[in-house]
Amino acid sequence: MYSFLYDYSEGCHPAILTALHESNLVQQPGYGDDVFSAAAKDLIKKEADAPHAHVYFVAGGTQTNLVVIHAALKSYEAVISADTGHINVNETGAIEATGHKILAIPSADGKITPAQIQEIADNYHHFPHVVKPAMVYISNATETGAIYSAEELKNISQCCRKNKLLLFMDGARLAAALCSEDNDLTLADIAQLTDVFYIGGTKNGALLGEAVVINNPALQEGFSFHLKQRGALLAKGRILGIQFRTLFSNQLFYQLATHANACAKAIAQAAISAGYSFLTKPQTNQLFIILPYDTIKKLQEKYAFYVWKKIDQDRACIRVVTSWATDKKMVDAFINDLKKS
Amino acid sequence: MYSFLYDYSEGCHPAILTALHESNLVQQPGYGDDVFSAAAKDLIKKEADAPHAHVYFVAGGTQTNLVVIHAALKSYEAVISADTGHINVNETGAIEATGHKILAIPSADGKITPAQIQEIADNYHHFPHVVKPAMVYISNATETGAIYSAEELKNISQCCRKNKLLLFMDGARLAAALCSEDNDLTLADIAQLTDVFYIGGTKNGALLGEAVVINNPALQEGFSFHLKQRGALLAKGRILGIQFRTLFSNQLFYQLATHANACAKAIAQAAISAGYSFLTKPQTNQLFIILPYDTIKKLQEKYAFYVWKKIDQDRACIRVVTSWATDKKMVDAFINDLKKS
Amino acid sequence: MYSFLYDYSEGCHPAILTALHESNLVQQPGYGDDVFSAAAKDLIKKEADAPHAHVYFVAGGTQTNLVVIHAALKSYEAVISADTGHINVNETGAIEATGHKILAIPSADGKITPAQIQEIADNYHHFPHVVKPAMVYISNATETGAIYSAEELKNISQCCRKNKLLLFMDGARLAAALCSEDNDLTLADIAQLTDVFYIGGTKNGALLGEAVVINNPALQEGFSFHLKQRGALLAKGRILGIQFRTLFSNQLFYQLATHANACAKAIAQAAISAGYSFLTKPQTNQLFIILPYDTIKKLQEKYAFYVWKKIDQDRACIRVVTSWATDKKMVDAFINDLKKS
Amino acid sequence: MYSFLYDYSEGCHPAILTALHESNLVQQPGYGDDVFSAAAKDLIKKEADAPHAHVYFVAGGTQTNLVVIHAALKSYEAVISADTGHINVNETGAIEATGHKILAIPSADGKITPAQIQEIADNYHHFPHVVKPAMVYISNATETGAIYSAEELKNISQCCRKNKLLLFMDGARLAAALCSEDNDLTLADIAQLTDVFYIGGTKNGALLGEAVVINNPALQEGFSFHLKQRGALLAKGRILGIQFRTLFSNQLFYQLATHANACAKAIAQAAISAGYSFLTKPQTNQLFIILPYDTIKKLQEKYAFYVWKKIDQDRACIRVVTSWATDKKMVDAFINDLKKS
Repeated sequence: MYSFLYDYSEGCHPAILTALHESNLVQQPGYGDDVFSAAAKDLIKKEADAPHAHVYFVAGGTQTNLVVIHAALKSYEAVISADTGHINVNETGAIEATGHKILAIPSADGKITPAQIQEIADNYHHFPHVVKPAMVYISNATETGAIYSAEELKNISQCCRKNKLLLFMDGARLAAALCSEDNDLTLADIAQLTDVFYIGGTKNGALLGEAVVINNPALQEGFSFHLKQRGALLAKGRILGIQFRTLFSNQLFYQLATHANACAKAIAQAAISAGYSFLTKPQTNQLFIILPYDTIKKLQEKYAFYVWKKIDQDRACIRVVTSWATDKKMVDAFINDLKKS
Repeated sequence: MYSFLYDYSEGCHPAILTALHESNLVQQPGYGDDVFSAAAKDLIKKEADAPHAHVYFVAGGTQTNLVVIHAALKSYEAVISADTGHINVNETGAIEATGHKILAIPSADGKITPAQIQEIADNYHHFPHVVKPAMVYISNATETGAIYSAEELKNISQCCRKNKLLLFMDGARLAAALCSEDNDLTLADIAQLTDVFYIGGTKNGALLGEAVVINNPALQEGFSFHLKQRGALLAKGRILGIQFRTLFSNQLFYQLATHANACAKAIAQAAISAGYSFLTKPQTNQLFIILPYDTIKKLQEKYAFYVWKKIDQDRACIRVVTSWATDKKMVDAFINDLKKS
Repeated sequence: MYSFLYDYSEGCHPAILTALHESNLVQQPGYGDDVFSAAAKDLIKKEADAPHAHVYFVAGGTQTNLVVIHAALKSYEAVISADTGHINVNETGAIEATGHKILAIPSADGKITPAQIQEIADNYHHFPHVVKPAMVYISNATETGAIYSAEELKNISQCCRKNKLLLFMDGARLAAALCSEDNDLTLADIAQLTDVFYIGGTKNGALLGEAVVINNPALQEGFSFHLKQRGALLAKGRILGIQFRTLFSNQLFYQLATHANACAKAIAQAAISAGYSFLTKPQTNQLFIILPYDTIKKLQEKYAFYVWKKIDQDRACIRVVTSWATDKKMVDAFINDLKKS
Repeated sequence: MYSFLYDYSEGCHPAILTALHESNLVQQPGYGDDVFSAAAKDLIKKEADAPHAHVYFVAGGTQTNLVVIHAALKSYEAVISADTGHINVNETGAIEATGHKILAIPSADGKITPAQIQEIADNYHHFPHVVKPAMVYISNATETGAIYSAEELKNISQCCRKNKLLLFMDGARLAAALCSEDNDLTLADIAQLTDVFYIGGTKNGALLGEAVVINNPALQEGFSFHLKQRGALLAKGRILGIQFRTLFSNQLFYQLATHANACAKAIAQAAISAGYSFLTKPQTNQLFIILPYDTIKKLQEKYAFYVWKKIDQDRACIRVVTSWATDKKMVDAFINDLKKS
């Protein structure tokens, strides 16, 4: 049984294990004040062309989201998100647990538009009886694999700045987005257009770790206090630094996502050839293919994947996820079995 | 410059890197539902003779403390702790950030007594105008290296049960405590005498990770929700499982702490021979040696350690920490330099 | 200028001032342990046929909502509400500030249905990655003046119990609901069908005060701690007790709402006669009348009311609120002016 | 049985009932936007010589404390308080429930000194592992009846400003302090020396209500959002405005406290004459008299008061509280009975 369930089914890219091995007995200060973290931060700031950014490493995505959002907002301020946003549906109320309301916007593919943001900004004015929208949260790639174009992101950024809303990009799958064939954004663009974003390691070949990049100086103050208070400051911060130093050396970060996307694309093209359609446009390493239940049943004999959603009596949408570790031979096998079915 | 600053200055024991390497491409479910975590949980439950316990792995100590305490308490309930307790002085108000008051008890060596607990239980009765004490938090070993004897822990446990107080042991340095020459407690004793405790990995040879052992069924319900909501549920939970499986195989967990304690003991004995005294009795891998400033200055040329506290005009207390990774040769060198000074 | 803006534009019914005057120098214990509060609680428990209920008095509605909901839910539990619910749109994120997510259900008139509740109960199962729905919040009358029938409430109650969801009724305008000509519920029915509800005083003739009635024993435990912790336990709790004792003596509570509803009905009938329609069916003391802008403009010369919502180029919906204090002569005057326009 | 238990045993000064009566049917906007509140704010700002202050009315003291402190602090910031402070011991963890740690300073009479504040400011520097002290909370009069002199307050204020600590005075019994014969502070002094303080109404003749005076512009922003979010914005805000307008007309505020203090002084002098001593120096309307148990027993036959604390085998300290409503005849009777015993 081969799993296309997640992009976190395996450990990490071997180069990371090597780096952990090589650095293992080097004594270093704790809590991220080590040379490996320093080197990783420099690499990221260079890649993002953001010399004045503050970079922090956090163990996981939910933790990153809750620390960043809570640190940025006043108690009575709210964050705008797609209703499909990870913070809104997959974090067990983590944001609300820090005290903040999420203002959810309907979305089909996980993306939101400036018009939707503007509508909320316009409607929330009956102060102080309503929360004050103060931040926009977007995911790139989204939870259903879509990506923002440079023009879309520029427009959102402009809309946010006009309305004094902070812009935060959840980049748990940022590598997949940046390596999509449809992408025309760079890390530097994102650094310029957002106030804060993070670069996912967990879903792109690291054992664990997300790199938060804070450009807005107002959000930099006191961030390490917030990390510590939420239990997000690891004693051996070095293990996050070592991983990101590795990912941002020799383009490994991009290579891993390019591989994942290529695997997904091969499957997507096979599905298209076989006449199948998609719930959302295939752009990154997550595919949402609509298949007959019979086909699904046959594929399930050899492959693990999520049955995402019932479409009609005869068909459902399945989610197929590829990763840096996806075996090309298993992709070919899956394609063959898809064609045969 | 050799560091005796922390017990988390290096990476991890090589056996852990080997285990990560060997398991690396095995596909497994996320969020702790993997075979490695399952095996590690079984090993821990067996070692603790606690077949009905629930075991969870968490990245770090502050996160563990805040999740456990918040999960166990009602909003208006408070936790009793030594004033020196990690939750009271070294977690940036993490417990209060989850909404709970800490009732601090004066302590010289980090330990508290049943009499002190009883006093709080007796004094807090002007309900509902005061918080309700509902949990006792103890650290073993304490933040200053002391350990609880079996009798002491039994008495605290009895006092807690009589007063309907939950008992939670912070075991960030539990290995050091269990491997102390003064120790007469087993993991099974601790499991029996507490409602919940955790076994520290970070400070005993893991890259990261603490294993929470919940014996009280009332505290088991909903714990995974709390973990997720606080951002403590790692996608690749396997990396914690793999490490604890390794630590609890072949007695590695105990071997590492025994080495750390032996290194500390050697230094302690040398200090005693040289006529120096201690702030707190040397029992585990943390020493608090009182030295003349001149001696400190000389030692600082070759070794890194904390100057913990001024004692008088001429002397200060330094903290020397050893670990699983401490080089025996450097211990000998330190002892030589101490004797010479 | 006469105001139809709110049902809290004036002070309180004169009988309450008299009661405050008469009791003024009687010495009583603080924090609700006074004889007036005791008497008021007895009257309410009798009226609600709920001898084992616990009754508490709280200064205002938002405070009541946040204390009740937070006291009832575990950290990872969420409350279901109409999207128009007061807790969702008019309390500045007060519920989220206590840590809980609101799961909002689309609603036109402020009411929700068992089918909608069931859908949420069915969809939230991907534990522990999503919040656990644990309570349903309904308003009666709703924020737009609609009421629940006995059958509707029975069905909701049944649905809640089947799904182990607590049922909480916000009764800020419960008097208006119970005195609606369409109503077939009694206070006793509500006590039986919900786990907890509150009876609004502020919007029915009191200076301030809401009476929380807790029937579910599981929700009674520790409630006074929650009140105190949220700053909701008034030193002079007597002033709330005195008011509710007055309201629940001689049917005053019902008389006041009957007056308010009658005033609203007279206006509603005039509007119908004049050929105007409503945004929501007139049932209580809040009317949402759709009028031409010209008419609105003329009425605004003499009367204050909210322009609630634009309907089209020519028309808007206005909100007209009557109360225990509404002057019948001003109602007649308004009707005349409405007819003329 | 006459009660010297509290200063909130009765309703309110008759002038307040008259004012409520006279204003009762005047229609006014809700939530504090009424003419009565506006007038009261003007009177307070004039009395405090603080034309740019923002003034808000809140129902009770605990609510005021939690809103002010939470509004002023960042998540990782802590408030310094005497260990006897109301926020530390009598509010069921209300401050911690908003997420903030209280740093308690030992105090005998409820007062703290600049040296104690400086010590905390000096000791908390191991950032970000410890909370950041950011505010000092003092009570005047203190919970045990002591008051700050002008010089003491100036020195505290100076110490706070030097250390970038906000200064907040809990004035639940500010009237008693300002009317003490030992007092040399004015409301204007307090406004100048603190960043925010509040003037207690509940314990000085109002039905309920505290007036928060915010001088520091940084603390003014968004305060009404905080009030609303914590359920502290009353729909009929007018009832607080009416009361404070009455208290600050014709010196009523001072007259009431002067009466309370005079009653206490008479009792204190009688106790001194009779050879009794005090736990804390009598300065305001709270006395802590040390009496033989026999005497206490006899007094308890006719008077209600708290037995505060056991002193030794034979004696205990009792708390006697007088108020605006204390009957001079009962004071004389108490004095007689005290002398006789």
